[in-house]
Amino acid sequence: MKTSVRHLYAKYEEYKDKDITLFGWVRSNRAQKSFGFINLNDGTYFETIQVVYDTELANFKDTQKIRVGASLRVKGDIVITPDRPQPFEIKAKEVELIGDSEEDYPIQPKRHSREFLRKNAHLRPRTNLFTAVFRVRSLLTQAIHNFFQERDFVHLTSPIITASDAEGAGEMFQVTTLDMEALKKEKGPIDYSKDFFGKKASLTVSGQLQAEVFAQAFRDVYTFGPTFRAEQSHTMTHVSELWMIEPEIAFADLKDDMDLAEEMVRYIIKHILDNAPKEMAFFDKFVEKGLIKKLEKVSNESFKRMTHKEAIDVLKDAKASFENKPSYDKDLATEHEKYLVKHFDGPVFVTDWPKDIKAFYMRLNDDQKTVAAMDLLVPGAGELIGGSQREERLDVLKSRMKEMNVDEEELWWYLDLRRYGSTPHAGYGLGFARMLMYLTGVENIRDVIPFPRTPNNCDF
Amino acid sequence: MKTSVRHLYAKYEEYKDKDITLFGWVRSNRAQKSFGFINLNDGTYFETIQVVYDTELANFKDTQKIRVGASLRVKGDIVITPDRPQPFEIKAKEVELIGDSEEDYPIQPKRHSREFLRKNAHLRPRTNLFTAVFRVRSLLTQAIHNFFQERDFVHLTSPIITASDAEGAGEMFQVTTLDMEALKKEKGPIDYSKDFFGKKASLTVSGQLQAEVFAQAFRDVYTFGPTFRAEQSHTMTHVSELWMIEPEIAFADLKDDMDLAEEMVRYIIKHILDNAPKEMAFFDKFVEKGLIKKLEKVSNESFKRMTHKEAIDVLKDAKASFENKPSYDKDLATEHEKYLVKHFDGPVFVTDWPKDIKAFYMRLNDDQKTVAAMDLLVPGAGELIGGSQREERLDVLKSRMKEMNVDEEELWWYLDLRRYGSTPHAGYGLGFARMLMYLTGVENIRDVIPFPRTPNNCDF
Repeated sequence: MKTSVRHLYAKYEEYKDKDITLFGWVRSNRAQKSFGFINLNDGTYFETIQVVYDTELANFKDTQKIRVGASLRVKGDIVITPDRPQPFEIKAKEVELIGDSEEDYPIQPKRHSREFLRKNAHLRPRTNLFTAVFRVRSLLTQAIHNFFQERDFVHLTSPIITASDAEGAGEMFQVTTLDMEALKKEKGPIDYSKDFFGKKASLTVSGQLQAEVFAQAFRDVYTFGPTFRAEQSHTMTHVSELWMIEPEIAFADLKDDMDLAEEMVRYIIKHILDNAPKEMAFFDKFVEKGLIKKLEKVSNESFKRMTHKEAIDVLKDAKASFENKPSYDKDLATEHEKYLVKHFDGPVFVTDWPKDIKAFYMRLNDDQKTVAAMDLLVPGAGELIGGSQREERLDVLKSRMKEMNVDEEELWWYLDLRRYGSTPHAGYGLGFARMLMYLTGVENIRDVIPFPRTPNNCDF
Repeated sequence: MKTSVRHLYAKYEEYKDKDITLFGWVRSNRAQKSFGFINLNDGTYFETIQVVYDTELANFKDTQKIRVGASLRVKGDIVITPDRPQPFEIKAKEVELIGDSEEDYPIQPKRHSREFLRKNAHLRPRTNLFTAVFRVRSLLTQAIHNFFQERDFVHLTSPIITASDAEGAGEMFQVTTLDMEALKKEKGPIDYSKDFFGKKASLTVSGQLQAEVFAQAFRDVYTFGPTFRAEQSHTMTHVSELWMIEPEIAFADLKDDMDLAEEMVRYIIKHILDNAPKEMAFFDKFVEKGLIKKLEKVSNESFKRMTHKEAIDVLKDAKASFENKPSYDKDLATEHEKYLVKHFDGPVFVTDWPKDIKAFYMRLNDDQKTVAAMDLLVPGAGELIGGSQREERLDVLKSRMKEMNVDEEELWWYLDLRRYGSTPHAGYGLGFARMLMYLTGVENIRDVIPFPRTPNNCDF
């Protein structure tokens, strides 16, 4: 096993005055006349290690010329340095250049614009900001799996390619193996029986309906996979390819659903604060001042819960002047969401929404006007989670589908779930990238996804 | 928190003679004249709980009529039953029907064909076989994340939609928002500048190239996401939508790559045997006799390692007669793979393959004829893992790309990785479903995927 910078930071005292060999990349090289300092990062840890070299080195002159971005092997002693900001450094005995870095290396030790770094998405993980973002992203993945698996939830993968457009969450990408150029020469309508799946197929917008299938067998389940939106959105919070977490719980109602969401958010925050202290300190200092305090507060308080009607009442009573008039029949505008989380100084669940602005599968409340839906609004990221209790009554579901023009035949299997051992059940969707924005303070969704897909952008 | 069958099996002694409430689905209901037995499964555990009811029940007559598949709430006492196969049962005080099951419920307590169950993929998770398969699937997901995260690997999501076809692993699905019917009326070639991404886009066949980007920043990384094949394959081991795990390690060679793969396979087997004993016993009994012994053996022995040339030598010396003649220039046929794993009685790494049958990114060996590639062959599942050391030398990579007609301009960013701090690095791909087949003994890949996609099949 190779050693790592992470390991050395945890155990450097054990290596005092011992020989170690380290591999990594040069973040900076400050060469003086008779000595020099290389900051080496090996990708395993946020911090670099300072390598000190001097004329005792056989290749001292070559080492002085080593450029930023180059990869090295360094052999040397660990020297404890109580008087420096870093607790130890390496006194080099050997420095070997493994992979040179050409002079035009774009990632120099200076401030680069986010836009510039997006164009160099293949190199940006080498910067402090993106090292931190993508490590927290990885920890977030693990936190989510841990949370659900510790609670015996069964993970499923929902299909990515679907022949259904019933979810109706927006525009879809078509998936085909038909030769489009050849099609142009054929007469008559397109014959989808010749397409790969024998019918028209698209990329899924949600794994929820399939998660419901599994919840009706395993009780507590979750998906964690990519979903797609073909909308021409050019905002800071929309991308075309987004990973979602969609838990689904049987024998459960909207309150259970909110309890689960709240517990999950707390768990995630704690996991990230515990496991990425360096990265979180960096975000707190350079990206969103007060981030850690905000997250600690959220992880220690109960989330406010109110109905859509109550939320509108609050907005109507507000002294603020809104561009969009709050209405009992309508969705909340972004300005309303912002007002609410500010007013209540923390996350807010808004429940029981007007049925006409929500999906067909949400459970109709006894008032016949609202559905048992919930949105979780959080400071800074707007709607983080959207969920609902699902309509488990076959007759009500069918009449809602008719009302909303959802094809019964296509969803025969979904209806079957209500024919054979139906249960009250509920679930929600969490946008993975949104959660990451909330945790890091990074404001543009393109900066929390390794290689984001947006209109006219499919690079790398 | 609701209690669960899993919890009760672990702690039933603590609940002795205590009142508990349980929710679940009826697997069977054997009604006698003055009493009856319901086997209740709540999805949290492989085993059912036996609920005993008698005429003391207010709704005894209705309870007798409860059908298979119905969902119930049961309140009763835990009674310890040392003389029965199951260690405890519930003496019912209340049985409430929550969701009825219509008479034509397809999943009756009898043997159903796999084909029938594939057509009822929305109900098959309620059978013993698929309860076991999909729980092990979920545990396998967690095992894989645990393995890599415990070793500080950074997880990344590679993009699903790609404008590159450089990987060349086979036929691709096209992704488009162009109105195909409208296109037919337009003259001239298709104008992809009007498509969503401003160019022709497809579903990815591999996340490896992007994983290499991250390995050159984080050293040790892995992807875990869906990939796609648009081939017209109708075999037991091919699907169109498949999840893959692709680790990538920097400052590492082919030996390190094999060490990692071997360690991972062992870890996974141990995790599954430890965490799914009931399910594994079921597979061992009903799906593949000797499965557990096979897996235990694999997890305790070193894997055999040999070059492609050595493997061909073994095959040439074999007394077996092959349909395909073993050749130093060619790929191994399935019959060859089978022979090798049988001959060596366990998993075999075959390394150093002829360059002409392998991908452009694999590192050219000093003989100029072979590349530093490896396939891991295992008994029962054939090729489980395929990997290689990557070509880190810019000039060699470029000449290999030219030889194999891979567009340099399209992969400018991939080449950049060799310009700025290139390192020896390696990685591999593990097919998630293949691994699951190997662990469960299930022979058809359609039976280890919740909703598989194959030619002419995009149901659910």
